[in-house]
Amino acid sequence: MTKTIAYVLYPGLTALDLVGPLTVTATLGPEFQSVTVAHDLSTVDSDTALRVAATTTFGELTNPYAVVVPGGTSGTLAACADETLLDWIRTASAGAEVTASVCTGSLILGAAGLLEGRRATTHWGFRELLARFGATPVVERWVEDGSIVTAAGVSAGIDMALHLVHRFAGEDAARLAQLVIEYDPEPPFGGIDWSSVDYAAFAPLTQAVLAESLADHPELLARLTR
Amino acid sequence: MTKTIAYVLYPGLTALDLVGPLTVTATLGPEFQSVTVAHDLSTVDSDTALRVAATTTFGELTNPYAVVVPGGTSGTLAACADETLLDWIRTASAGAEVTASVCTGSLILGAAGLLEGRRATTHWGFRELLARFGATPVVERWVEDGSIVTAAGVSAGIDMALHLVHRFAGEDAARLAQLVIEYDPEPPFGGIDWSSVDYAAFAPLTQAVLAESLADHPELLARLTR
Repeated sequence: MTKTIAYVLYPGLTALDLVGPLTVTATLGPEFQSVTVAHDLSTVDSDTALRVAATTTFGELTNPYAVVVPGGTSGTLAACADETLLDWIRTASAGAEVTASVCTGSLILGAAGLLEGRRATTHWGFRELLARFGATPVVERWVEDGSIVTAAGVSAGIDMALHLVHRFAGEDAARLAQLVIEYDPEPPFGGIDWSSVDYAAFAPLTQAVLAESLADHPELLARLTR
Repeated sequence: MTKTIAYVLYPGLTALDLVGPLTVTATLGPEFQSVTVAHDLSTVDSDTALRVAATTTFGELTNPYAVVVPGGTSGTLAACADETLLDWIRTASAGAEVTASVCTGSLILGAAGLLEGRRATTHWGFRELLARFGATPVVERWVEDGSIVTAAGVSAGIDMALHLVHRFAGEDAARLAQLVIEYDPEPPFGGIDWSSVDYAAFAPLTQAVLAESLADHPELLARLTR
């Protein structure tokens, strides 16, 4: 039976969180298929100037082999209060080999109750929020804790997906995926100098996003900001 | 006046070629806007399990500040024979500060006549084809030749886009973009070992894609395979 890797799509997601890993796992052989799954097949806004639509619906897809949840900002926080979406993730996760997230997608896993007692990561600007869901925030590119695999911000999903391909199909498959997408990074200014990041300067931005996005969900807002 | 960075969208494109750089340039300040542009706003298939739609049309968008053309395989070759699309790119490019491509998007620039006498690159599996359009193929992550900037395969668009942000708005803007998308790459097996790549094994695949995709365009097929 084909093993389905299901990428959860919702309005306002960060497209790169989904497209990076999707492009990696799509290189897997015919034993696997990578799909996008949403409430319905309608075209929705992402958080950049690209509109996106899924290839299947929550109702049509049961028992995926793996689930990958992308992040974003206000759209992701709204998804944290979408009980139908959370229920689908919980059910799918129970039978899945891996449930993964990219960036703030881990907040959705947290809202679904899947991070209790787990080591996990997310975008650097939201990392401490993971503790509000019972997780231990970890500063790594991606974190594997049993069946739960969480990646850091946005582009970290590509590195995590290469690890997933390794886990699912071996090192040769992961190296082929890397070659196909020519992932031989050369950031013009090298890697990020984390010692120079002024985290405190970004904290009010995170708080503002939370307050604005969760105005209609006071319980979740209180949980994340108390 | 707002400077518009226009990402060309067409059926069958490699979504990551577009979404990588789009996510980078979307972090630029309000002096810039990043949009997606296509024949119309309909939702089309990409080359993975994500359907995509643009935010504006060729008819609506004139005089962009920059144009970015993503690649793909059969969809990209079909676009190389789409005269309306090529005309729009030619006209837009004439007034643009930069015309850029990711992966095999450079073949579209070539088909539009924009690579004559230029140094350029593309996905490693298609690199030699650039000579058929009068370009000099170069083995670099991205190549800047005046207003024409071409990136290597798929993920190279992220590195190129960071360079474009540097060119358009300075180093601080590029470093901020990198931080926002947390681009601090850690490929699980390190970079690509190019000395181990069996290029000859992939050549028949490239030829098969060309023959199948350009069956209805014998002149272009002959130009690329003679």
